[in-house]
Formats: sequence, structure tokens, C-alpha cells
Amino acid sequence: MSIPRNVPVILFGVGGVGRALVRQVLAARSRHASRLHLRLEFVALCDRTGAVVDVHGLSDDTRSALLAAKSAGTPLRQTPTGHSQPDPNIILEVAGRDGAIVIDCTASDDTCPALLMALGQGYGVVLANKRPLTGSWATYRQFMASPRLRYEATVGAGLPVIGTLRNLLDAGDQVTAIEGAFSGTLGYLCSQLQRGASYSAAVRAAHRLGYTEPDPRDDLGGMDVARKALILVRMLDWPLELTDITVETLYPAALSGLSVPQFLESIKVLDEPYAMRVQAAQAQGQALRYRAEVREGRCQVGMEPVPLDSPLGRLQGTDNLIAFHSARYAASPLVVQGPGAGVEVTAAAILADILALAALA
Amino acid sequence: MSIPRNVPVILFGVGGVGRALVRQVLAARSRHASRLHLRLEFVALCDRTGAVVDVHGLSDDTRSALLAAKSAGTPLRQTPTGHSQPDPNIILEVAGRDGAIVIDCTASDDTCPALLMALGQGYGVVLANKRPLTGSWATYRQFMASPRLRYEATVGAGLPVIGTLRNLLDAGDQVTAIEGAFSGTLGYLCSQLQRGASYSAAVRAAHRLGYTEPDPRDDLGGMDVARKALILVRMLDWPLELTDITVETLYPAALSGLSVPQFLESIKVLDEPYAMRVQAAQAQGQALRYRAEVREGRCQVGMEPVPLDSPLGRLQGTDNLIAFHSARYAASPLVVQGPGAGVEVTAAAILADILALAALA
Repeated sequence: MSIPRNVPVILFGVGGVGRALVRQVLAARSRHASRLHLRLEFVALCDRTGAVVDVHGLSDDTRSALLAAKSAGTPLRQTPTGHSQPDPNIILEVAGRDGAIVIDCTASDDTCPALLMALGQGYGVVLANKRPLTGSWATYRQFMASPRLRYEATVGAGLPVIGTLRNLLDAGDQVTAIEGAFSGTLGYLCSQLQRGASYSAAVRAAHRLGYTEPDPRDDLGGMDVARKALILVRMLDWPLELTDITVETLYPAALSGLSVPQFLESIKVLDEPYAMRVQAAQAQGQALRYRAEVREGRCQVGMEPVPLDSPLGRLQGTDNLIAFHSARYAASPLVVQGPGAGVEVTAAAILADILALAALA
Repeated sequence: MSIPRNVPVILFGVGGVGRALVRQVLAARSRHASRLHLRLEFVALCDRTGAVVDVHGLSDDTRSALLAAKSAGTPLRQTPTGHSQPDPNIILEVAGRDGAIVIDCTASDDTCPALLMALGQGYGVVLANKRPLTGSWATYRQFMASPRLRYEATVGAGLPVIGTLRNLLDAGDQVTAIEGAFSGTLGYLCSQLQRGASYSAAVRAAHRLGYTEPDPRDDLGGMDVARKALILVRMLDWPLELTDITVETLYPAALSGLSVPQFLESIKVLDEPYAMRVQAAQAQGQALRYRAEVREGRCQVGMEPVPLDSPLGRLQGTDNLIAFHSARYAASPLVVQGPGAGVEVTAAAILADILALAALA
């Protein structure tokens, strides 16, 4: 048995997903050593609060202490360069070396230059962050120029969405349409409405249960779903921008300026209109679903009535669903369904991408 | 733009799937050149009727003529060594070279030695053939010793089953159960029974529509489903043999010796017992499904009543379904669903595996 090959890993974003990734890597080390003959070694952890770098790999003690501190809300230490705000480019210069893999678990645009630099150096890049692929088409093309980019976690978390679509396309299939429900939060809202809950009660429950972002308008606005749809659309080589997607926002613009408590109080006014939409759908044997649809060069995202007896209509709770229609999947689509969010399944998707890249090296 | 790298491909089995693969490779060449910088080049086509080898790659004309002839039922030409029955080992010696990928689209045990030799030489191997992985556990382990083996097409054809399970395991998830419907033929039978068709009418219709093998007992025996289940079980490192799986055969042993027309005639005697099973299930709000279940170290395959309002209960027609239950997918499983057979989707799965292996080289 040969000694496992070291693969240096640089992590941008040490939030819930980033920390779950570190834990998963450590827990799976013996499997990786015996089956894949490799050992993933974190050489840099970096977020807005600082960065820690050790080009020989952070020791178990250092890493554990850091993750515990981060979980408790303590900032990372200063950057190696002494600046208080770490610059991802500098982290990359200090920590990067042959065969490195850079992970982006942030939700920021600021990492883009460093990620492109990493790809330019021949490093692997794994994205959970949707922003690098949902900026301009020109930037998207820059990312796609490298064969060492992976981004399975950006749509459906751990569900096999990106890889499935990539395989369909690489095998020459003609994808004619993609439709699905890409938001567990909005799936929960739709299920609750279907059961007779009022809009305001459903939104407040989702907020209380932690299904929404701290500001629920970040989910209700639909832009997160639109970004996921844009990533899929662009894989089909349709050069759309985010602004080309028709997005239905589930609250009126007049409520944008309120504080979160004010917003949660004021949405009672939406109960009646939503109840009427739900009833109109049910009268037709349909259910409302927040659906993304990609078809004929266009993309739209919004609340739509769908037949109760369809895959989307049967979807319940926070599960995601994605259906691929293609020349080879014409009579019946290829469907993937399951939980599409959560730190553990998102981290698992990133880890699978890391391993695929490490195998290329 | 660099010149695409040539990847030599050796194909065992020039039936419907093998021929679809050749067509798909040719049709996707420009995408492969521009996106993946590689060109798949068939250097040998081989089946029981003969073999054709050209280490520089078969010319378009040669290949087209051969495929047309094969479609019409004409044997391939003699082997390069002059023997009337081509020996896969010899084909491999003649045609193999660095970076080669060997495809097994046969349904035979005879290719095993050549496939293991190919892996030993560092070649890639892609299986649509389930037999190499469903012989003895010891042989299975020999195949798994190589990182250059792929076999997505063996379960669910083009559906992302093997890769999904591999990713769950490599990311350290604990898979607790797998259940599903892995036979489109038996799915059709179950749907027809549910609609009130008699067993004999449903089997005859499936046979007439070409959903079954030429001898429908090859489907009704359940061994094809058992082999798929065994492949999944073994991925969990459970050292089971095919004989350890409990398999329900959907016809009595007394009908084994009959000719196909005799068999199709005699199965009327099964109409009443199956009608009673269907009615008993329906009285409980359930439907019969031919289900494979992997749980707690055991595996069973057979006709089971499942709730109508469950993923398996809602499954209709020839679609396959597979549900993975794991530590991270505990509340709700990861589900993949869609057509799980057919030459085009099977060939597409093989092609995706070829490309993944080619990227490693």
C-alpha cells in the first residue's frame, strides 16, 4: 500500500457549511486513504474575520480549537500578512501550491478574482457559492474555461443535479426543459398553504423554525431560486443574465423597507390574496408550487398551479425536486428528489467534488 | 486550442447498446473536442461473431459498414488472429495501449479475465455487463482493487445511481437502507395488475411490446433485479453472494421447462392467485410492486404491497425508482426516478463513464 498523496485544501468561508466540511474530511480520512490513496490537508481557513495558514497542513489541535472558537462566534486570527481584512488573493499566494483545491463556501462576490487566479494556476476550485457563476455571462465563461471547476453544491445541495445534467450533455443528449422546486423554504410555505395555513402563519412558522434566512424576504424574493435556475440555464449554453429571468417575488415592494419584525407583522394583508390563489388552484385539482422552469431559451421562476397528481404537485415539505426532459428522456423525465439544503448534505456535495478533482491530479 | 488527445476505446459486445454507444460517440465528437480536449477512437469492436481491430482507429467508412452489417444480423469478420471465436484476451493484447478504455456491453461471464487484465495494465474499464460484479465476492474484490473501473450503466441505465451512492459513501455518509424498483418490465406488469389486467394478459402484453427479454421468464425470475441489488449491497461493503439474496420468482418452477409459446399459454393458471394478491393489497390502500430492499446487512427482492401514497406506490409504467436512506438523508430519502432501461440511455451512461475515466489519464 502506497502512502496516501497529500492534497492541499484552501477554504474560503468558515460558516456552518465550511465547518461541516472540515469535520467530514477528518471523519472520512481512513476511507480516503485506503480507497482513494489520498489525504485532504487543510492549509488555509479564511473568512471575513481573518485567516489561518499553515502550508504543511493545520494541526488537528489548531483546527479543532479554531472551529470551536468559530462556532462560538469568535473571529479567526489576523491574516499572515497582518492586514485586518484578509485578502483572498494573498491567502492564495501564501498557501497555494501544486495540486491545491480551493473551496468557496461564502455567499460573496469578493472571492471571484482569487478563484479565477486559482484556476489560472491549475488549482481545482469547488463552489458552494452561487455568485461566481451568476454574475455576468462573460465572468461565467471565464470560470468555465477551466476543466478544474466543480459546483454540485450550488443547486440542490447534495442531490445529484449538476453532475447529472453534465453527463446528459456530455453524452450528446438534447435537453429540452428543466423544471423543479429548488427552495426547501418555499416548498414548506407551499405545503402549509395547501394544508390551509394562512400566508402570514406559514411565513412566521418557517421563520421560527429556522427554514428561512434571518430576513425571510431573502427567500420570499425568489432570487436564490433564480440564481440556481441561471446556473442550469447557462449549462445549456444559453447566454442569459440574471436580469433575463422572470422572477415572482412573494411580497409587495411596499414591504421592502420594513424591519424584519415589522415585515412579519404586516404580511397579514397577504393572507386573503394567497388564500384565494390556493382555493382557485384547488378548485382545478391543482396545488401552488414555487417552480423554476427552463424551456425554449427562457427561464421563469414563480408560484404556479401544478396538477396535484404530478411530481411537483405531490412534493411535500422542504424536499427539492428537479426533472430533466430531453430527447432521450422524452416519454418520462429523469427526476431527482430529496432534501436540497442543510449544512451536512451541502458539505458532502463539496467533499465529493473535491475528491473528483483530486483524482484528476 | 490544443489538438484533442486521442483515447483508444475497445468495445466488447456490438449489440443494440454497443451500436448506440458508437453512434453517440461520433455525434458528440465536436463537443468532446472543444470542451474536454479529447477524441474517443474505437480501435476494436468484438463480439461472439468476430472482431475488427485497427490500432490507429477504425475509419468512419469501416465502422459505418460494420454497424450497418451488425444491425442486419451479419457476423463481424474473423479475428486478427484467425480464430473463428475471438478471444477477448487476444483482442486486448493486439489493440490495447496506454490510456485505453475497455467497454463491456455483453451479458457474458467470458469477458472477466480480459477485463481484469485490462485493469492490471492500467487501462480503464466501463461495465454495462452486471456479471463481472455479481460473481463471487473474491472476483468482485479483484475488480474493486482498481480505481479505473466504472459501472453506472449496470443499475438504472442512465439514472444517476452508482455515482450517487459512491458520493454518499466517499463523503462519509452512513447508508442505512436502499429500496427501489429496478425493472421496467416488472414495473409495467405491476401497473397493469393495478389497473385490473390479469397476470397472463399483462405478461403477454409486455412480451408483445418488447418490454421483456425474448423469454419473459428471464425477467419474471427476478435474477436481473437481484444482480442490480447485489451490486448496490456490495458497494456498502457487505460481502454477500447472489445466493444470499432472497428472490421471489413470479412463476412456479413447474413452468420452467416449457417453450416460450407454451409458457405464455400456461400462465392463465396464475391469473386468479395474482388477482387475489392485488385485491388484498388494494383493500389495505396498497399496491403491489416488485421491490428490491437492502437493509441491515440483508437483501430481498420480490412482489410486496406498498402504500399507494408512497414513492414506490405512485410509480407507474416502466419507470425505475431508487431511494437512498442514510444518516444525512434520514427524515426524507434521496430519490432518483425515471426510465431505467433502453439502448440510448444505457449507452449515454457508458459514455459518461468513459469521459470520467479519460479525464483521469
